[in-house]
Amino acid sequence: MILCDVGNTSYDFLDGERTFKKSVKDFNPERINQKVFYICVNAQIKPLLQKLDNWIDISVCVDMKKYYDTMGVDRIFACEAISNGVVVDAGSAITVDVVRDGVFEGGFIYPGIAAMQKTYKNISSLLDYSFNFELKLDIMPKNSKDAISYGYLKTLYGEVISHNMDIFLTGGDAKRFAKLFSDATIDKNIIFNGMKKIIKEADIC
Amino acid sequence: MILCDVGNTSYDFLDGERTFKKSVKDFNPERINQKVFYICVNAQIKPLLQKLDNWIDISVCVDMKKYYDTMGVDRIFACEAISNGVVVDAGSAITVDVVRDGVFEGGFIYPGIAAMQKTYKNISSLLDYSFNFELKLDIMPKNSKDAISYGYLKTLYGEVISHNMDIFLTGGDAKRFAKLFSDATIDKNIIFNGMKKIIKEADIC
Repeated sequence: MILCDVGNTSYDFLDGERTFKKSVKDFNPERINQKVFYICVNAQIKPLLQKLDNWIDISVCVDMKKYYDTMGVDRIFACEAISNGVVVDAGSAITVDVVRDGVFEGGFIYPGIAAMQKTYKNISSLLDYSFNFELKLDIMPKNSKDAISYGYLKTLYGEVISHNMDIFLTGGDAKRFAKLFSDATIDKNIIFNGMKKIIKEADIC
Repeated sequence: MILCDVGNTSYDFLDGERTFKKSVKDFNPERINQKVFYICVNAQIKPLLQKLDNWIDISVCVDMKKYYDTMGVDRIFACEAISNGVVVDAGSAITVDVVRDGVFEGGFIYPGIAAMQKTYKNISSLLDYSFNFELKLDIMPKNSKDAISYGYLKTLYGEVISHNMDIFLTGGDAKRFAKLFSDATIDKNIIFNGMKKIIKEADIC
């Protein structure tokens, strides 16, 4: 069984235990002859995949009423993977979603590392620092690098832990944020786990 | 006694009870013949003012060891105005500084409204919303506009109130943030109040 999470920049595949990526720019999905169960947030790619008989969109198997209209299907499948907890997906944006007793309670969107660093730099060249992930979160900063790091990281950290739930980190920057959320579980495959659960429940494989 | 807080875009004056602004682009400080007590964060303007006998830089009267080297003098004077509390100065950046028993404990820097809105827009055109300042902060969002509003506002709010101190709002966006911080004091003149205190203490007027 091949699973694929199609994003804005890449096709992320899981084939058995093996994960691999293909760029959306030059990968032709017709190259795969096996059955592929997929979800897709990419509006350009979606119509291409719908024409292929062996590519099966499993987003239709989820009860979308539990979520909201404009919510990315990748966030939805990450939520489907857990029964209780906060999913922090750290990529170009950071999405934070809360699931309690299998029910999606809501979520928010925060800028990713690169986007926020650019924001500070654009406000003033004096704020052009990379963030300090070793920052002590219980001490108010007394230098500019820590002042922006605290502004970016502590505010997010405080909100995430305020839910008093298990934290699941995923996305390209999961490891960097693991320095902050020391008790969090890093789960790079949380979306695939959600996909497997839905496939099993829908009994389509 | 005329006070002036020189920023990157304007000269902010207090003359008795009257406040007024002049653009740094076209205002000539030589036009004022009276004594002006000033602070200045603007590196271009500072050398001009130093040449004028009637413009008196009062930043030299503050014990700078209490603060840090790259901290803006406007933030320092806002802190000097209070003995206990959190100063939230909401402009192109938002600075948050904590003063306890007259001692500066530290502070952080967060993007201002316009900068952060642009950040979300640049991440995705689907996130191009203005922030909802009427947002209910105790409910996790279930739509995109609230998801970014919560990401921007709730994270900041939670951190600021976590200090359990009186909150003083100042800066151009103070009124908008007053919707969030309902118990906060809006003090547009907090920097001038700090200047008055320092002038009195230094006995220079």
